[in-house]
Amino acid sequence: MITGKNYIGSQLSAKGATVYKTFNAQLNIENEQVFIEATTDEINEAVNLASEAFKLFRSISGKKKALFLNAIADEIIALDDKLIHMYCSETGLPEGRAKGERGRTVGQLRSFAELVANGSWVEATIDTAEPERQPMPKSDIRKMMIPLGPVVVFGASNFPLAYSTAGGDTAAALASGCPVIVKSHPMHAGTGELVASAIVKAAQKTGMPNGVFSNLNSSGIEVGAQLVKHSGVKAVGFTGSINGGRALYNLAAQREEPIPVFAEMGSVNPVIILPNALRNRTESLAKTYASSITLGAGQFCTNPGLLLGIKSDELSSFIQDLSKEIIEISPSCMLHPNIIEAYESNKEKILSQPELNVVANYDLDVQVNYARQTITTVKGNTFLQNPTLHQEVFGPFSMVVECDDAVQLEAVISQLEGQLTGTIIADEGETSNYLGSVFALQNRVGRIIYNGVPTGVEVCPSMVHGGPYPSSTDSRFTAVGIHSIKRWVRPFSYQDWPNELLPDELKNQNPLGILRLVNNKQTKHVI
Amino acid sequence: MITGKNYIGSQLSAKGATVYKTFNAQLNIENEQVFIEATTDEINEAVNLASEAFKLFRSISGKKKALFLNAIADEIIALDDKLIHMYCSETGLPEGRAKGERGRTVGQLRSFAELVANGSWVEATIDTAEPERQPMPKSDIRKMMIPLGPVVVFGASNFPLAYSTAGGDTAAALASGCPVIVKSHPMHAGTGELVASAIVKAAQKTGMPNGVFSNLNSSGIEVGAQLVKHSGVKAVGFTGSINGGRALYNLAAQREEPIPVFAEMGSVNPVIILPNALRNRTESLAKTYASSITLGAGQFCTNPGLLLGIKSDELSSFIQDLSKEIIEISPSCMLHPNIIEAYESNKEKILSQPELNVVANYDLDVQVNYARQTITTVKGNTFLQNPTLHQEVFGPFSMVVECDDAVQLEAVISQLEGQLTGTIIADEGETSNYLGSVFALQNRVGRIIYNGVPTGVEVCPSMVHGGPYPSSTDSRFTAVGIHSIKRWVRPFSYQDWPNELLPDELKNQNPLGILRLVNNKQTKHVI
Repeated sequence: MITGKNYIGSQLSAKGATVYKTFNAQLNIENEQVFIEATTDEINEAVNLASEAFKLFRSISGKKKALFLNAIADEIIALDDKLIHMYCSETGLPEGRAKGERGRTVGQLRSFAELVANGSWVEATIDTAEPERQPMPKSDIRKMMIPLGPVVVFGASNFPLAYSTAGGDTAAALASGCPVIVKSHPMHAGTGELVASAIVKAAQKTGMPNGVFSNLNSSGIEVGAQLVKHSGVKAVGFTGSINGGRALYNLAAQREEPIPVFAEMGSVNPVIILPNALRNRTESLAKTYASSITLGAGQFCTNPGLLLGIKSDELSSFIQDLSKEIIEISPSCMLHPNIIEAYESNKEKILSQPELNVVANYDLDVQVNYARQTITTVKGNTFLQNPTLHQEVFGPFSMVVECDDAVQLEAVISQLEGQLTGTIIADEGETSNYLGSVFALQNRVGRIIYNGVPTGVEVCPSMVHGGPYPSSTDSRFTAVGIHSIKRWVRPFSYQDWPNELLPDELKNQNPLGILRLVNNKQTKHVI
Repeated sequence: MITGKNYIGSQLSAKGATVYKTFNAQLNIENEQVFIEATTDEINEAVNLASEAFKLFRSISGKKKALFLNAIADEIIALDDKLIHMYCSETGLPEGRAKGERGRTVGQLRSFAELVANGSWVEATIDTAEPERQPMPKSDIRKMMIPLGPVVVFGASNFPLAYSTAGGDTAAALASGCPVIVKSHPMHAGTGELVASAIVKAAQKTGMPNGVFSNLNSSGIEVGAQLVKHSGVKAVGFTGSINGGRALYNLAAQREEPIPVFAEMGSVNPVIILPNALRNRTESLAKTYASSITLGAGQFCTNPGLLLGIKSDELSSFIQDLSKEIIEISPSCMLHPNIIEAYESNKEKILSQPELNVVANYDLDVQVNYARQTITTVKGNTFLQNPTLHQEVFGPFSMVVECDDAVQLEAVISQLEGQLTGTIIADEGETSNYLGSVFALQNRVGRIIYNGVPTGVEVCPSMVHGGPYPSSTDSRFTAVGIHSIKRWVRPFSYQDWPNELLPDELKNQNPLGILRLVNNKQTKHVI
């Protein structure tokens, strides 16, 4: 069923000599299937086919694109247990997580289908002519969003479904009218091929142009680099490490024609626990955070890796409680030996820093590839002086920073790098006394949470998943939710264009019945 | 009245030793006033002051920002003839143009004032909580646009008012809540200082934080480079040459924290003249285009530098008519000796290319700094093979490309670099026969015009001024019109945030009465 080959449009292709296998982290063995890395020829074929497909795909109606997206969702569901088993065999993650993530993936596809079937997302804006205006007549100008062109998507290691082959980036790009070329993640190439087969089938069933989607295998960095440098590629989506994202950003910025790279990268997701909250809720907070820190073996980009508080007896109790709670949680399997290796070595680097205390460290025997959770503490001053302590440790690890006072707390927050999220834990009315810290936090993050945990990223229009660098390369866009479609489009104006030649979105009759800004008023009326 | 000094916030400052003067192109003499270039210290002061000002300015209400923007417009008007005379003495442009551009500048400021006073522009998006949802409760999440931080604006040589000190970039950035530091254009430093004084006065009168605006003098590239590299700067606006814009883009991309550069750069604005239109309207087209090509001595970014047609007797007649018409237009003064020098040398470079014909060249005596208009023709094949012919000649110059047939026409269009505009001149029904060319053109431009001229950029919500690289560095945004505010903002989410601590835009009561997307429905209702 799985072939190990690349999809160049609807064609399976395997011209290359470089091969690799995926790994079953739970069983600690290599999987059998051999995957064949894409060659330069295959990369060029995929991009050229995508450029050809774009000529048709960019003007396919929203309703037809919706059929395509819904068909992808249907085909993914039809893969049934085959997909779930493949997912588990390549990720070390449990079946429940596989099914939950499949639900999220299918839900995302359907929400983009709904968005483009409705059609109002194109931000249609119309200013009608005023031929009599003095001193100059005013032209009729009409604007809408149009797709950028072929998009390359780099899947995430930690979301083999929801942020990979048919994940958020792909769904948003296809919805916008951009063909997609996926650079398959080597850790879950089999899951990727299964999902790719679903997309190809859906494209054929709904009459999409060949090349609207391709899936290229790759075990190293060369395929991805060639794709980003290819003149036919017009934008890039990436979820992964800061090093990886920055490298792609640099390649794209150095092109003759620079292109946007939307990379969602690292984040330690600072959590500020204010004194009264600490006083009144020490135990429940410790329980909640022990669970958030270890969720999915800490392999979430919104994992709370940094807890900030003001030195007090209550903070000391919280640290004690958190240490106790977290040790009671059973370790779980990480995605891949490389991931746990990175976890251990990043943790070791942090633990070797001066004036750092380890207050909890799971030290019972664990299975191979299972991650031991660790909690450390450090003084505010030490944290301020040592940038190494600001770095993310991807896994079930968190650091509590004990600040001297509110002034130092604000200083610590202000010095943080850009983050996806920031959280304030406070009692009623308490936040008003720390507005400096709240504003400083807002300046460093894309989403601010009150009395919750950063893990759990709701897919909804109001979600921002992204933030100041290095949490993402362009804080002006979100990677989650329907508005993530805005990454792949540009505004386009028609001036004095004949009504019959305008796209339906901009025609006088408003045949799609969409909401438009007409002469500065929002309306669905005809003109 | 003019001091030649920098404005660091409201303080005049001149610590530097590098000085320069502006030039009166009409009189061909240097102006008297000496301007003092900003030093590294002054650059740091301006950025630090802007960062401090941002802490307050970012959350100032839309209504107060509107007062500020309208006050800037009032103070510019109050400068009266002093401003007009200064403008003319530094640009070689006539008084009528100065007044027209002042009107545009003031109009832009007032339209942004209206936008932020109304407040709906923040794209408020609210998803209310569902505590009972299974399997997981849903949080309350609310999103809106917030400003990025201090913005550096590089003014344009050819728009000393409308795209300089208080021009579109500055107005949009201030409207969004970003402090602005202007890198003053050396060719019109006096006009810049007058407008800066108006902004500073307006900021003081309306109680804006000091540092919300600074104006730094600079005769070379060093001040601009230091500003773009400064870690306190969060975005850049630029209007000018491809070399200049790309250099700033590269600097910004190489920063530890890369920042967005919105550079509006070169464009030859291709005009496709279809056969029937040519047959029926040769003379009037020739007149219209002779006038568009020479408007403002050709110093517009939307100047039609490239006319494309299919070889025919009618095209030959058109070329003849255009040549005759353009020679009858009196040459006009260019902005500065450097500009006419660049015009002459770029033109010479093009004229020295093989298989290029000069069909019109104004060869009567002209005053110093006045530009002689030139029309050239070239065969489609020659154009396709020589990229030098694709380069912009900034000034009253245009090239007619005679294509063999419709296929070659489409090939020429497809090979063009990214452009601000593209124009189709067609008779009724004719466009339908050239849809390949129309689609190819759409793929290369930001705005497409039917039976008009590209010059004249209306300031309205539906305008796109920007396009694929190199016409701009980020085609996903427009530089003209109220939606240009989107360049300076990022989306931000509040999760489960207490109602009283939310910004007014997101409060349940909707105290600003703005349009919001609440649970996926556009509404002004309270929650």
